[in-house]
Amino acid sequence: MVVRRQAQVIRVRPERIDEYEAIHREVWPGVLATIERCNIRNYSIYRMGDLLFSYFEYAGEDYEADMAVMAADPVTQEWWKLTEPMQEPLEGRGDGEWWMTIPEVFHTD
Amino acid sequence: MVVRRQAQVIRVRPERIDEYEAIHREVWPGVLATIERCNIRNYSIYRMGDLLFSYFEYAGEDYEADMAVMAADPVTQEWWKLTEPMQEPLEGRGDGEWWMTIPEVFHTD
Repeated sequence: MVVRRQAQVIRVRPERIDEYEAIHREVWPGVLATIERCNIRNYSIYRMGDLLFSYFEYAGEDYEADMAVMAADPVTQEWWKLTEPMQEPLEGRGDGEWWMTIPEVFHTD
Repeated sequence: MVVRRQAQVIRVRPERIDEYEAIHREVWPGVLATIERCNIRNYSIYRMGDLLFSYFEYAGEDYEADMAVMAADPVTQEWWKLTEPMQEPLEGRGDGEWWMTIPEVFHTD
């Protein structure tokens, strides 16, 4: 199993930072269960000013299929309805992306 | 053993991006060996524009002591002599920091 690592960036609306951080201290169990079911592991989000950086590992065999499963999950859809208005996606992100995937410069295990 | 996760950010001088990425495709073995000896694991660097975002895990028992070991390593010092002029540390970083540590908003295993 090759683990695929990924980092992504998005902006958080400055006036929503407190709220964004508060709900991320108690992410809904259904959202966490879907993350796990979709083979995402070791998922962290960090914040610098109004930029959010995420890091996660994908341990499945078909990333696009798993992301489609995630996007079809009703609880996740409710979560995104709540979180997306708090975010402002970056110019230059890939087609179909909300968070912008950024390239790896270096890795060592 | 509690693994401590950490994310850090620094700026790379725009005119040095190509060079910075090139040397990170072939990081010196002595630098990698010191990273491992100092209990840093799963260390990645990503880039968005002129911002570098790093993620690593610390698997030792005394982070400050291990970072002192790293800073005392002659090969690592040579490496930093090469890389630091390519970087521009961010305002607002902590005392004694080069890369700025940024807070975690969310984590799930």
